[in-house]
Amino acid sequence: MFTKKLLLDMDTGVDDALAIAYAVGCGAEIAGITCGFGNVETAEAVRNTLDLLSLLGRPEVPVFAGDAGPDGQPFRVSEACRKIHGENGIGNVSLPHHGKPSLLPAHRFILDAARKEGDALVIVCTGTLHNLARAILEDREAVAKAHSIVFMGGALTVAGNVTPYAEANIANDPEAAKIVLESGLPMTMVGLDVTLKHRLTRETAGRWADCGHVGGIFSEIAGYYIDNESDRGSCALHDPLAVAAAIEPGLLVTHPFAMTAITDGEAAGRTVARSYPEECRVKNVRAALESDPGFSGRLDQVLRGLFKTLG
Amino acid sequence: MFTKKLLLDMDTGVDDALAIAYAVGCGAEIAGITCGFGNVETAEAVRNTLDLLSLLGRPEVPVFAGDAGPDGQPFRVSEACRKIHGENGIGNVSLPHHGKPSLLPAHRFILDAARKEGDALVIVCTGTLHNLARAILEDREAVAKAHSIVFMGGALTVAGNVTPYAEANIANDPEAAKIVLESGLPMTMVGLDVTLKHRLTRETAGRWADCGHVGGIFSEIAGYYIDNESDRGSCALHDPLAVAAAIEPGLLVTHPFAMTAITDGEAAGRTVARSYPEECRVKNVRAALESDPGFSGRLDQVLRGLFKTLG
Repeated sequence: MFTKKLLLDMDTGVDDALAIAYAVGCGAEIAGITCGFGNVETAEAVRNTLDLLSLLGRPEVPVFAGDAGPDGQPFRVSEACRKIHGENGIGNVSLPHHGKPSLLPAHRFILDAARKEGDALVIVCTGTLHNLARAILEDREAVAKAHSIVFMGGALTVAGNVTPYAEANIANDPEAAKIVLESGLPMTMVGLDVTLKHRLTRETAGRWADCGHVGGIFSEIAGYYIDNESDRGSCALHDPLAVAAAIEPGLLVTHPFAMTAITDGEAAGRTVARSYPEECRVKNVRAALESDPGFSGRLDQVLRGLFKTLG
Repeated sequence: MFTKKLLLDMDTGVDDALAIAYAVGCGAEIAGITCGFGNVETAEAVRNTLDLLSLLGRPEVPVFAGDAGPDGQPFRVSEACRKIHGENGIGNVSLPHHGKPSLLPAHRFILDAARKEGDALVIVCTGTLHNLARAILEDREAVAKAHSIVFMGGALTVAGNVTPYAEANIANDPEAAKIVLESGLPMTMVGLDVTLKHRLTRETAGRWADCGHVGGIFSEIAGYYIDNESDRGSCALHDPLAVAAAIEPGLLVTHPFAMTAITDGEAAGRTVARSYPEECRVKNVRAALESDPGFSGRLDQVLRGLFKTLG
């Protein structure tokens, strides 16, 4: 039984949408969702998040916008990403618009929630680490009050997905990743090392259409992603695995590392363990090396249950 | 007590020299040393190996030459490598020449030794994986008879040392590394993940000069390397750690991976774990993630003992 509160930080595209549904399906309390750039622009992430929360029967969850880009400039979503997640980030499926974001900037909400909830708060980042980095820079000790930090991002032992080196969430803001990884705060990294192994197939997503209206919408959103992310007839469950591991840490086998992110040159965006003994005194990042192969079945079960409840 | 026989495969530069001395100092039986290109040209590796074995009182150990390069062409040693290991590969220290290599090609000796010694043989590669790859291509089942394979090479969780990606031994022949890693044979990878943490300081190497003639020579060889490998006043004990782990596996904490080497593009030479579930059925590579921080002290102890015995 998960008794903590989730703070989700997302660049709400398709797998973020699945991750929100998974959290809701598990009955997890969601303190708020902070949004950023990555799969989509920040404003689009906010829009998708509000609309998805409403669709999932959780319109009361507050949503917060972060910066529009890593360096004061608006972030430009890559063509590849527009293709994979759809022009609107959720597989070109139009949802009715509901609600508005809160006025507080994303990083301020992270700080407020950590101060208020303390050990009851689990922070899960599934986009860049920009909002969390800003929170850490402003008040590291406040962030340290949270129970735990889990992020989907990086590639430690495997190749990247946007360059041979880099995974998208880190590549989209390597400086932020460096700040977070080197903060010394305990955290769990859910990278491509494990996420690519958990696949949602076209068949499984297709059957969600039999679970009611909301299931049909999610079937369509996920189906688009499956058709465009790869030619494997399945998609990786990147962000849902991070949320699931936040709720149930036993899904992962981790190993502690002292880590950083490379910010320059062809290797920019690579997450690396540090090499020299004096750099490794604080092994604050538990990187996932193995994960429960039953997770994709678990996700299907949780989402089908949710869709049937919602009708 | 180590009761196996070592087959060392080396591109005999300075840290290979320290690794040979460590094996001799531990009283390990050495079935033979096969040589290849990397830190030096193959012929230079043969020369250095013969001379070092003679210096260390083990002129009876047979030495074998492998190919001159990865693709039928002579390998060209990089300028950086010439600087780090010295023009002759052993810190520009001149040793008297002794002995000649055996006529059998290196990969044939690996096969013969594996067939003859079987479970008594431990193969340790501290250069490229070229000779071992040729042996595997010629008769994988013969190589499989050996007790174990340990190699120094690669960078799984940390940055490379010749490119942001690649460690030198793998970068010098990525195709060979790919063949070996994908062979399915059980092996232990001792990469930059652990080797950079074990340092030989100028002070420690300097004190070897008080341990007799041979100690003085090794002090000079190691001193050159320390002065040229980095500006840290110390050098990494890459190859000695691999030999030590072959003798005493408890020095390492490893994790099993299905691995390959990237052979093309800017990432060429990177050792990576494989990403998809169907690729990970055979996790034959135990990659070292942690190692005994007392190793550098142990090496000093073993080498001082050896040097005093040799006088």
